[in-house]
Amino acid sequence: MNSAFLEEAARLLGPKGLTTSAEDMAPWLTDWRGRYTGKALALASPASTAEVSALVRLCAEHGVPIVPQGGNSGMSGGATPFESGTELVLSLRRMNRILALDPAARTATCEAGVILQVLHEAAEKEGLRFPLSLGGKGSATVGGLVSTNAGGTQVLRHGSMRALVLGLEGVLADGSVLNQLTPLKKDNRGFDLKQVLIGSEGTLGIVTAATLKLEPGIAGRSVMWAGTASLHDARALLLLAGDMAGSLLEGFEVLPQHSLEAVLAYLPDARAPLAGPHEWHALIELVAGDAETAARLPEISERLLTEAFERGLVADATIAASEDQAERLWLIRETISPAERAIGPAMQHDISVPVEKMPAFVEAAVPQLEADWPGTQAVCFGHLGDGNVHFHVIAPPGSERAAWEAGDGKAISAQVHDMVTAWGGSISAEHGIGRLKRDELDRLGDPVMLATMRAIKRALDPKGLLNPGKLV
Amino acid sequence: MNSAFLEEAARLLGPKGLTTSAEDMAPWLTDWRGRYTGKALALASPASTAEVSALVRLCAEHGVPIVPQGGNSGMSGGATPFESGTELVLSLRRMNRILALDPAARTATCEAGVILQVLHEAAEKEGLRFPLSLGGKGSATVGGLVSTNAGGTQVLRHGSMRALVLGLEGVLADGSVLNQLTPLKKDNRGFDLKQVLIGSEGTLGIVTAATLKLEPGIAGRSVMWAGTASLHDARALLLLAGDMAGSLLEGFEVLPQHSLEAVLAYLPDARAPLAGPHEWHALIELVAGDAETAARLPEISERLLTEAFERGLVADATIAASEDQAERLWLIRETISPAERAIGPAMQHDISVPVEKMPAFVEAAVPQLEADWPGTQAVCFGHLGDGNVHFHVIAPPGSERAAWEAGDGKAISAQVHDMVTAWGGSISAEHGIGRLKRDELDRLGDPVMLATMRAIKRALDPKGLLNPGKLV
Repeated sequence: MNSAFLEEAARLLGPKGLTTSAEDMAPWLTDWRGRYTGKALALASPASTAEVSALVRLCAEHGVPIVPQGGNSGMSGGATPFESGTELVLSLRRMNRILALDPAARTATCEAGVILQVLHEAAEKEGLRFPLSLGGKGSATVGGLVSTNAGGTQVLRHGSMRALVLGLEGVLADGSVLNQLTPLKKDNRGFDLKQVLIGSEGTLGIVTAATLKLEPGIAGRSVMWAGTASLHDARALLLLAGDMAGSLLEGFEVLPQHSLEAVLAYLPDARAPLAGPHEWHALIELVAGDAETAARLPEISERLLTEAFERGLVADATIAASEDQAERLWLIRETISPAERAIGPAMQHDISVPVEKMPAFVEAAVPQLEADWPGTQAVCFGHLGDGNVHFHVIAPPGSERAAWEAGDGKAISAQVHDMVTAWGGSISAEHGIGRLKRDELDRLGDPVMLATMRAIKRALDPKGLLNPGKLV
Repeated sequence: MNSAFLEEAARLLGPKGLTTSAEDMAPWLTDWRGRYTGKALALASPASTAEVSALVRLCAEHGVPIVPQGGNSGMSGGATPFESGTELVLSLRRMNRILALDPAARTATCEAGVILQVLHEAAEKEGLRFPLSLGGKGSATVGGLVSTNAGGTQVLRHGSMRALVLGLEGVLADGSVLNQLTPLKKDNRGFDLKQVLIGSEGTLGIVTAATLKLEPGIAGRSVMWAGTASLHDARALLLLAGDMAGSLLEGFEVLPQHSLEAVLAYLPDARAPLAGPHEWHALIELVAGDAETAARLPEISERLLTEAFERGLVADATIAASEDQAERLWLIRETISPAERAIGPAMQHDISVPVEKMPAFVEAAVPQLEADWPGTQAVCFGHLGDGNVHFHVIAPPGSERAAWEAGDGKAISAQVHDMVTAWGGSISAEHGIGRLKRDELDRLGDPVMLATMRAIKRALDPKGLLNPGKLV
């Protein structure tokens, strides 16, 4: 049966479009974090939506399960096949054309395989930008970003991927093509099916193209670093920045002293932005899209920090005096993850709670965990403005990685997820569910939510061939 | 069977919660525009989500179809029962509490029956505003606005209802309660089920509460009126305003000379904003949320119009010198519909095309229709910034309303919808499908879109009891 399918698929896709070579497939069978390695029946790389459509129809006829894959830079194993070897990995990477870039309408229509960095560069050439970025931008593709509703440090101002998708084309489980690529700013013809595919991790359809929103290019930015005595003060500073800088506020990241020290130990050339230590640090970025506003940024930044001092929210602060200084402040933020990982084994959690509850949550959860698991250290850093922190729990010194991760580490993760759920939060703020958190979602998800998701999954993929075993 | 259901429902809801009196029900059995009058088994007015849940479960047991209703101010008959008399009208109007209004988080959590104007006033008391308004604001409810993804003149800046819903609670077809009321700015736990209920016109679930986004109150606004030689020039002016005023641009409405003259004839006290006639008129509004920006509005407005003159986009223009003048300019815009209606019978269409295509569409569609239907006059006005105009076709003078509407008028509507579809547009930009456009959606909708909508409908409402015969 499989050989008949493979023959037909090879005929359909041509030599560039299908491989069963172990060597060719190998890079795409292990996930980004190296957590899972699977097997595949074949790796298909169609060159067009029509080919994706025909291939999916063929899969439906032969009962072949499909694992859609973009840049293979997901954090939750959602694009990695299982170990069975019965699944087809469907790579969208060959579909990498920017089909249109309209500077007046400020939109870019991209095939699914367009790499984020390529889109950034294309927008920049027109004096525009695509206001979403993340660590894997050299690999991550538009299709993957849409399918996982990706986030990043600019969500505070511009929203996550969902807010940036104006139009979408996708192939459904029976091979039919849902074409909603032409953006209509207003369209009330029933259910917004785009929204159903966004963030569904390839379980309801395969995103083949998207029309994305662009923003004016950056005419200037102001990057500040502030030391605060508590996360409550950092939150008050965030609200103040929102009031005083309005829609110019593009980034508001926080880190504890522990993370700063980890970065300073990890990066030989890094220097502490402020003279003394502070319980918490905030990295604040204002961005202007036109020259006139850009000229006002220094004054707005000064006034913001002066007001924050006067209110006692900030103990010390600095404004980057050059792009180079601004880059160095951001480098600290971007190095936290590897720096914390260098300390030793750690369980990492990508969680959110309602924005206003975040300080209280961290103040309750961190000491609780450290008390329950002696020797561990809990560290939270990230996107305070979105109520989303990366919650790392570092193993007691000397722990053996594999044993700790499988034992105490697993129990710690369950406890973090329990606490987040009790606080009305999410066990996956940015990184999706994929394979990694499927059982936890099953355990902790609201039963009505789970039942509704499963009903939609059965309705749109009755044979269960689209990324089975992931998410739902 | 019905009597058993009615007895149980009466026991469940109490005397305030259920009526079968023809007199009590009458106001809720005819739609806002007076197009449809139906019959109902009873009118239920539950007082809580728990009562809605129990009532829907009871309906599921007895096979009683439900027509959810908010303020009964919909434009497409979506909240009016059919003539069979077998349907239960489920009014959410008694659930009219604002459950929370958090000025720091800028959110308001409202039961479904909260009237839009009440929400406006509550937000204003806190120095905030809810940035969506429309003609029926004294009747329209939060639940209805969410269920129809309502729009208005502020969509350009703030988006339609979908963009303003942060959290949602709804009762599904089996009576289960989907509670996603606590807003999480980031949450990637699978499908975003909120999005499925928003705009589904009560066919997938009954919205019982929503957490909505608030914006800073208005610190100042600048309202301008400009005469242009073409809709292309108006569109160029819109792009210029976007570049020069950025996110301050809140409204950009257009009307042809014909609509201005209709308003001047209809409103005895109205005066033309500009000295001479112009092919097209643009009404532009900038809004500032803080005093400092408000102080800059006059300068920004002057510069915008000066630049527009220099580019030859504008023949004449004026800036409202007072709130009173600003109100009078807006009154002209808001009076177009009744003024056009006073001329005689007309078919009204609420359509959108891709924003950048709107001028070319209007230039092609208007003369085509007038040529195909001698004696008619086609008039487009409205939200150019959203690619959404109200496209009215006025009957030849002396036409008898009912006969014309049922004959030529119907054929004209079909032709307008055909043209819009051919241009990649929507036959319902704002007003939804309801009962009014269901057959047209069936005729013109993309088959894949329709099949997918029906699959979701069957999955979430297998007995077909939620607002049957509407939308899908």
